[in-house]
Amino acid sequence: MAAEPTVLVAGASGYAGALAARLIDRHPHFALEAVTSRSDVGRTLDDLYPHHRVPMTLDALDLDRQGDVDAAIVAYPHGASAPVVSELHERGVRVVDLSADFRLHDLALYNEWYGEHGATGLLGHGVYGLPELHREAIRDAHVVANPGCFPTAALIALAPLARAGLIADTIVDVKTGVSGAGRAATDRTHFVAVDENITPYNVAVHRHAPEIDQELALLGADVTTTVVPHLVPLAQGELVTCYVTPTRGVDQGELDALIGDAYADEPFVEVAGDRPPGVRDVRDTNLCRVHAVSAPRTGKLVVIAVLDNLWKGAASQAVQNLNLMFGFDETAGLEA
Amino acid sequence: MAAEPTVLVAGASGYAGALAARLIDRHPHFALEAVTSRSDVGRTLDDLYPHHRVPMTLDALDLDRQGDVDAAIVAYPHGASAPVVSELHERGVRVVDLSADFRLHDLALYNEWYGEHGATGLLGHGVYGLPELHREAIRDAHVVANPGCFPTAALIALAPLARAGLIADTIVDVKTGVSGAGRAATDRTHFVAVDENITPYNVAVHRHAPEIDQELALLGADVTTTVVPHLVPLAQGELVTCYVTPTRGVDQGELDALIGDAYADEPFVEVAGDRPPGVRDVRDTNLCRVHAVSAPRTGKLVVIAVLDNLWKGAASQAVQNLNLMFGFDETAGLEA
Amino acid sequence: MAAEPTVLVAGASGYAGALAARLIDRHPHFALEAVTSRSDVGRTLDDLYPHHRVPMTLDALDLDRQGDVDAAIVAYPHGASAPVVSELHERGVRVVDLSADFRLHDLALYNEWYGEHGATGLLGHGVYGLPELHREAIRDAHVVANPGCFPTAALIALAPLARAGLIADTIVDVKTGVSGAGRAATDRTHFVAVDENITPYNVAVHRHAPEIDQELALLGADVTTTVVPHLVPLAQGELVTCYVTPTRGVDQGELDALIGDAYADEPFVEVAGDRPPGVRDVRDTNLCRVHAVSAPRTGKLVVIAVLDNLWKGAASQAVQNLNLMFGFDETAGLEA
Amino acid sequence: MAAEPTVLVAGASGYAGALAARLIDRHPHFALEAVTSRSDVGRTLDDLYPHHRVPMTLDALDLDRQGDVDAAIVAYPHGASAPVVSELHERGVRVVDLSADFRLHDLALYNEWYGEHGATGLLGHGVYGLPELHREAIRDAHVVANPGCFPTAALIALAPLARAGLIADTIVDVKTGVSGAGRAATDRTHFVAVDENITPYNVAVHRHAPEIDQELALLGADVTTTVVPHLVPLAQGELVTCYVTPTRGVDQGELDALIGDAYADEPFVEVAGDRPPGVRDVRDTNLCRVHAVSAPRTGKLVVIAVLDNLWKGAASQAVQNLNLMFGFDETAGLEA
Repeated sequence: MAAEPTVLVAGASGYAGALAARLIDRHPHFALEAVTSRSDVGRTLDDLYPHHRVPMTLDALDLDRQGDVDAAIVAYPHGASAPVVSELHERGVRVVDLSADFRLHDLALYNEWYGEHGATGLLGHGVYGLPELHREAIRDAHVVANPGCFPTAALIALAPLARAGLIADTIVDVKTGVSGAGRAATDRTHFVAVDENITPYNVAVHRHAPEIDQELALLGADVTTTVVPHLVPLAQGELVTCYVTPTRGVDQGELDALIGDAYADEPFVEVAGDRPPGVRDVRDTNLCRVHAVSAPRTGKLVVIAVLDNLWKGAASQAVQNLNLMFGFDETAGLEA
Repeated sequence: MAAEPTVLVAGASGYAGALAARLIDRHPHFALEAVTSRSDVGRTLDDLYPHHRVPMTLDALDLDRQGDVDAAIVAYPHGASAPVVSELHERGVRVVDLSADFRLHDLALYNEWYGEHGATGLLGHGVYGLPELHREAIRDAHVVANPGCFPTAALIALAPLARAGLIADTIVDVKTGVSGAGRAATDRTHFVAVDENITPYNVAVHRHAPEIDQELALLGADVTTTVVPHLVPLAQGELVTCYVTPTRGVDQGELDALIGDAYADEPFVEVAGDRPPGVRDVRDTNLCRVHAVSAPRTGKLVVIAVLDNLWKGAASQAVQNLNLMFGFDETAGLEA
Repeated sequence: MAAEPTVLVAGASGYAGALAARLIDRHPHFALEAVTSRSDVGRTLDDLYPHHRVPMTLDALDLDRQGDVDAAIVAYPHGASAPVVSELHERGVRVVDLSADFRLHDLALYNEWYGEHGATGLLGHGVYGLPELHREAIRDAHVVANPGCFPTAALIALAPLARAGLIADTIVDVKTGVSGAGRAATDRTHFVAVDENITPYNVAVHRHAPEIDQELALLGADVTTTVVPHLVPLAQGELVTCYVTPTRGVDQGELDALIGDAYADEPFVEVAGDRPPGVRDVRDTNLCRVHAVSAPRTGKLVVIAVLDNLWKGAASQAVQNLNLMFGFDETAGLEA
Repeated sequence: MAAEPTVLVAGASGYAGALAARLIDRHPHFALEAVTSRSDVGRTLDDLYPHHRVPMTLDALDLDRQGDVDAAIVAYPHGASAPVVSELHERGVRVVDLSADFRLHDLALYNEWYGEHGATGLLGHGVYGLPELHREAIRDAHVVANPGCFPTAALIALAPLARAGLIADTIVDVKTGVSGAGRAATDRTHFVAVDENITPYNVAVHRHAPEIDQELALLGADVTTTVVPHLVPLAQGELVTCYVTPTRGVDQGELDALIGDAYADEPFVEVAGDRPPGVRDVRDTNLCRVHAVSAPRTGKLVVIAVLDNLWKGAASQAVQNLNLMFGFDETAGLEA
């Protein structure tokens, strides 16, 4: 029997990287080879995240030592990620990158939203890692750009309408838990600032908007999305409420059929019944749960999607992508 | 010196009624005469709400005993409220009604959303109690229909744009704390159901929508609003994110001037500066805080308003209305 | 190959019963045969608890139909449980009872704390289901009384000291999440009552106290425990702080050795290192994590234990007991 | 009419200092002269704490400019506070110090727990600022050491028993909200670390223990207290559960009389009735609420006290002290 593919998780001291390490550590087909960190070298994951129960020690990244692996999950901030992904790629390692560095295909657009790009030569080679949209391309990809958490939810909500040519205009109102802001202790993530509060941020200028637009365009919807995120007092979980002005009238029956057909065979998309979903329904899972309403008074289509921002919005979706890339069952290691 | 006007609070065992009782009890010009309840007769407010420190005993409603007052705040559910308001009105008592019974002016519309009306003769006499829109009419009113909490926030956000003829279409995405669902212990208000969760409800069919539309129409905006509320894990506070498709381009400067001019002299509306407001900014106050953004990519106007659903969204707005009705300083008893 | 033992979960609409159903449904060796409820007959578990993903329908309890099983987990309130357990036992079904009905061995003590007992004949036959204390007896038991959640934590904390004859006096201060109060929607479990609050209850008269004393006595400690529980704003999780006045001086080294030796081979007890444990460390697991300090100024021994009240404090401990009763690996279906 | 006494708040960018500034700003008899900060010079209090609505700008401390005031509240960390208090004192300014620098009267004890002291000459001159114990001394004091938040609650709970000679031994179990850890953004105060968690810290080695012992000794109780604090997921509020082994049997009636008599005339101590108090009962007030139980099984006395750690535990108690020092009504500016 062939040995299990080995995996490096770079940036494993952050929330998403640490969870990725845990998922790989428990995975039936992959072997967790090494975990690295820029800020916590020498500490164990058990010390930082007792509930993950991964007793490995965080190492400094040194690809001469850790680069002899089959795959890597890179959980670095945008900008810092591109050079590392590039070097791993040159060594023949297949990479899932959690940053934004390879999500946008257009360099000018990247520059506008993120600044300089650290590996422009590789920019066009990244496959956008939303399996529900790009499953086949992901199977063969060498660099997969794991989507942002808002785009993951918004695109799963909107893709069936986009494909059907039904989106004239769309607004995405996001409610997100605090882990989405990362592990850095700041004035914004202090418990006292978040508790009993709701705060909008990056109103209509969030970086996830162009990512949503890029993918909707590939599905045939030529729209510019208005995205407004709000921080709400919970740790994990994200809900997007997508308001669509349709190109023509769509009644509830047609809407249900459209969504139901699109996701009948998707292992990680659930279509909620009559009751709108809550983020707790999908906590600690790779699932996205969708609910659509044709508004009776206004004819707007309201599509709601919930997911766990650290799981389907980041780490477990990375593992779903790795499963595809290595020919394993897409759900391996991700059963609810 | 004339005696202080006396006030009855009917329905004082619920969240809004109890807070109204406290505000009247501490008020410099009104005297709290009696508090009544349908469910907790014989208990004290101190027992139910220790933090309010109002040591009065809840009585059963009996207007032969309690009806000899100058004013009443009625905090009953819709339907149950109309007959009580009507009887108080006949006795010459000036009333602020927290229910929906006198908010909608059109009987057919009321019937559609709420069912039978219990005092149709009085329906057209209620003044919609949003001082920022109807201050003068409130001064002379005998029955004031205190607005719903969502309409209070949404109308303060949208009124300046409606008056300027700038609203072609609007969507109101609401995030609200649990006290908005009332004191009843239900599956929906159980801590375990709410904590670490976000749940939409009454998607695009919430009863506050026609109330918003009625008032926007009076301001010249002939629109039908899509309203989607979401329950988030906090006790008090509400944030509305209003997405406006404008009738023409409106840049940030014009938007700022429009909002700033509208509220320069309003004692209870704050215009936030660069930083979007959080609901905690206005907790336990009668303030509504507004923030508007002209979306750079899409031209949409995003107007955000926060308030405390139990205060400006209910009880303290009732006191603001009483202040106007009795010729007192509008801010009496409501200083931050 | 022999068929998998079949399991009935009676009372599966409550928090603990529903989780037990999920754990059995996913278990490698047991088959979930039926789920029953007294309050929600005809609803599915998926409807009540979407995150458990158990699509079975809740049935009314009728042992003529559901009684032909190998084992049952009964999640009824005390008093209601005893007759059901008794009838199951007579049919030859091996039972784990989550109620208090078979925990206390002394009938007079039961009567004092809980009132009449519904199956006195069976009272002495229940085995107290704390595997860390009674593993061998559980293997052969026909009726296992699953411990209360406070006693589970307190006894794991105190047992090593009790066995060593070191406890002269002990106080157990409990902090518990709201799910411990059950699914019933009450004034006490309303989000608004719990949020931003800490409330003691049943001060020094909690029913878990005699249960702790019974088991400590069996270990040689003849003490009466003072137990004070406090409700804190979280859904799942419990922390007990046990203050022991020792019979003689015990320094940190001796204390560490005592605790460390006691739990070196226990699969579900972790001894925390230097850092005191938090309840989140063991969320959604069958683990109990222990931390002990010899107080430098006073010589008191402070032993802290955390667990998830719905898991090790109820449902997963029931599965651990079933594993023992049926000769399976004790950790089957309970891996972290 | 004499001018209002002027007050400087030094360290007004932290939680307690900012609240003190707000209370002085709204105070009927004091005038807020200046607010200073070490970390946020140039920012306004409105920017940092919108809900306080104090539009003053934070200045760097320079007593040549700000020292010409009648009183100062110093909200510095221990160690940093002593030199500032000393200099203010030399300029004739009466000071309430929120740090620990003047709480302990014994220099060796201070050195043991806090290190070097920055103004040893002034050490013996500080009056321990718990009005319920030292009201008369505070009236004449020039330097008042505002108590720690745990000692405030614990001493109000225990003082009547100490005075009566009833305390043989005592344990203080503390549950506290996150604002007690201050405004610094750290791993410990990150929302994700606190939410759905309970964590003990400084187990049996908390610095507030010697402070409690010092004051109990002055009341005649020669005990060493075991103090264990626990961080729970709320922003403001603190509950102490004090377990007393009495020197003789004390029944509930005697206990009630003892506590009731002690606090009958105290404006800021409430004795709870049958229902144990919750921290929300006293949120945003200067009140401490006490509840005592004589444990029926064990004879232990359990005394519970709740307060708001930022108010009675810090800022509003400082104002209460200033009221006493300047001969004003003790409750001025502090009405619930």
